Amino acid sequence: MTSSIPDSIAVNGRFYQRPSEPAVVLCIDGCEPDYITQALQAGAMPKLQQMLARGAVTSLVGDAVMPTFTNPNNLSIVTGVPPAVHGIAGNYYLDRASGAEVMMNEPELLRAPTLLAAMSEAGVPVAVITAKDKLRRLLGHGLSSGSICFSAEKADEQQQALAGLSLPDVYSAALSEFVFAAGVALLRAGRARLLYLSTTDYVQHKCAPGTPGANAFYAMLDRYLGELDALGARIALTADHGMNAKTDAAGAPRIAFLQPPLDAALGEGEARVILPITDPYVVHHGALGSFATIYLADPAHAAAAAAVLRAQPGVELVLTQQQAAERFELPPDRIGDLVVVAERLAVLGTAPERHDLAALQDLPLRSHGGLSEQQVPLLFNRRLRDVPQRRLRNFDAFELLLNHVRA
Amino acid sequence: MTSSIPDSIAVNGRFYQRPSEPAVVLCIDGCEPDYITQALQAGAMPKLQQMLARGAVTSLVGDAVMPTFTNPNNLSIVTGVPPAVHGIAGNYYLDRASGAEVMMNEPELLRAPTLLAAMSEAGVPVAVITAKDKLRRLLGHGLSSGSICFSAEKADEQQQALAGLSLPDVYSAALSEFVFAAGVALLRAGRARLLYLSTTDYVQHKCAPGTPGANAFYAMLDRYLGELDALGARIALTADHGMNAKTDAAGAPRIAFLQPPLDAALGEGEARVILPITDPYVVHHGALGSFATIYLADPAHAAAAAAVLRAQPGVELVLTQQQAAERFELPPDRIGDLVVVAERLAVLGTAPERHDLAALQDLPLRSHGGLSEQQVPLLFNRRLRDVPQRRLRNFDAFELLLNHVRA
Repeated sequence: MTSSIPDSIAVNGRFYQRPSEPAVVLCIDGCEPDYITQALQAGAMPKLQQMLARGAVTSLVGDAVMPTFTNPNNLSIVTGVPPAVHGIAGNYYLDRASGAEVMMNEPELLRAPTLLAAMSEAGVPVAVITAKDKLRRLLGHGLSSGSICFSAEKADEQQQALAGLSLPDVYSAALSEFVFAAGVALLRAGRARLLYLSTTDYVQHKCAPGTPGANAFYAMLDRYLGELDALGARIALTADHGMNAKTDAAGAPRIAFLQPPLDAALGEGEARVILPITDPYVVHHGALGSFATIYLADPAHAAAAAAVLRAQPGVELVLTQQQAAERFELPPDRIGDLVVVAERLAVLGTAPERHDLAALQDLPLRSHGGLSEQQVPLLFNRRLRDVPQRRLRNFDAFELLLNHVRA
Repeated sequence: MTSSIPDSIAVNGRFYQRPSEPAVVLCIDGCEPDYITQALQAGAMPKLQQMLARGAVTSLVGDAVMPTFTNPNNLSIVTGVPPAVHGIAGNYYLDRASGAEVMMNEPELLRAPTLLAAMSEAGVPVAVITAKDKLRRLLGHGLSSGSICFSAEKADEQQQALAGLSLPDVYSAALSEFVFAAGVALLRAGRARLLYLSTTDYVQHKCAPGTPGANAFYAMLDRYLGELDALGARIALTADHGMNAKTDAAGAPRIAFLQPPLDAALGEGEARVILPITDPYVVHHGALGSFATIYLADPAHAAAAAAVLRAQPGVELVLTQQQAAERFELPPDRIGDLVVVAERLAVLGTAPERHDLAALQDLPLRSHGGLSEQQVPLLFNRRLRDVPQRRLRNFDAFELLLNHVRA
């Protein structure tokens, strides 16, 4: 590979210095910045507080990619490019040819190599640990044979022994803790030089920033931040998306159901609402997020459909495929004819009978997917130099960590 | 007065039924809906929980007026119209003729009568209680001589005896509690039929939804909601604006200072940044909100200034005077040549040396003023009928409470 920086590695048009010390990027799923602010305020993050007090921290805010869902953002972070380049535009898309709804968990859907794969090919010991297994194959795509890549959800006995934890429940804070514990163990054993640790937002979907459940999660994270820091690792903490309440004051979900008004205006079968948040793990958010894409049988209906959608309470923005592809840097062939974004306190649904809202009876809906969940932390346990004076993105995390740490 | 509804009173083109039972509108300053959701979730609002459980509550969400500041919204709620009609476009404006910065606390600046004044003139016993004194004269403007209108901040001995509380500190939760206690006492004594109670956001500027300080405030509110409900009052709870964190994850304020880049681009003295959040009570937010208006010496510089402003990190939206007047229903003569709105997690400042940021050292900045603080509760202790199928506003509170309660 060619490169403009000595001993650096080029991936997707960007250059990354080979890590001169252990380097860890944490993608804390659903980490609205206020989770950390409030946990610090409550005294629940003493290790981070100490790092801040000694002036060792750089705290920035960057924009996640739209839609603010897990897969597109994790892939942007590990490729350094937006979904227009890497191809993963959601958790899910509609294959127009077959009419089938396709999960975007398969490596063959990925259109760009990851910087993790390139680093591993260049001989850097790389480890990737994810909470849920769905991300494992995408993030691990192209890693050299000596690399480490596994999920907490499907950890084998050897990996459980490494983490010192038994197999956690897929719906638990423990699933994320397993990721951190295993990462610390790999670093301590000298088995990895570049680590990508990606958690799940089980807690963030349930608990608002500063509440006891959230503070307990961030206190747990803080213990591992302290361990990683003590082991001499440079750390970047970012997120795939933020998180907001999606309810009225009494806690009832605010849902704009899009299929019925489209059917009423265009006729049944003319428009198909796809919610790219949908995945096999929907228990904690009822498949309700703040982003939808609409496939039309007849593209000539786009203007009429857009007008119907804009009139729905809770809808913030309706874009054509081309507008959405340009504004959000999305691959046009993996989104529908229209893209719909909900207001901060609202989500989008297909039709009421297609969502299981029972889980929302006890816990008020908190979710993501829209523009209101785009701002996420870019937090480093090092002072940075020459931070680019442009809009920062969560997918700048590796470049900032590898190229911009002050000597 | 003429009216289309029997025994109703017309004000600013809207009709309000004379209250058939005691009616109370609560404007809870800075009441982001999630404050109530999280307090309910924590078990801190048992009275409201009981009302919800017996199906007696209508919970809606409405939009506050822009800018999402105290004065414009309180005046919209009591006049039923946007600032374009009532004239109060902020807490503050620049008088172009004199160059003086004018507080919008003076009744002569009000361009529309309040429905409270009209009700009092029609013989309805009206009471208005505000936390801070700055709102008292505006809200009390035109009330008939028998009406009650006072502030907690400047309550006299008789008013303190009524509330059963001593004079509270202006920076305290007690200032708002005084408002509720006095309102309950007036209702119990049969001295008012229509009440408007308006609090201060001292707690909301400090505490995130669901945190102990916030839950303590809402537990206090809940006790008074229970008392008002037990006294047979119909209640509408709304807010002047929501509230958001305005910091990075480490709690540092995210401020776009607008004066230096304007001076650099246009020359000194060409542009003047006015922050209409500014008022004598700035201790809890350092005069930093998410809305600014720019006065230009030469209006021909508008396009150049707008380009400079759009390039500032943290700026979400820049509108011309005419665009802002149309989109936000603002009086053009009380805003500058440009209007600037900040992103959800950012605020706008003039120049660093003109803000006292010392108060933000201990508590992370939480503030308002932008589009991200526009959604507020519209919560009623009654079932409503025939709720209009249009965008609801906080200034629909009186109409919904007086005209739409189910018999």
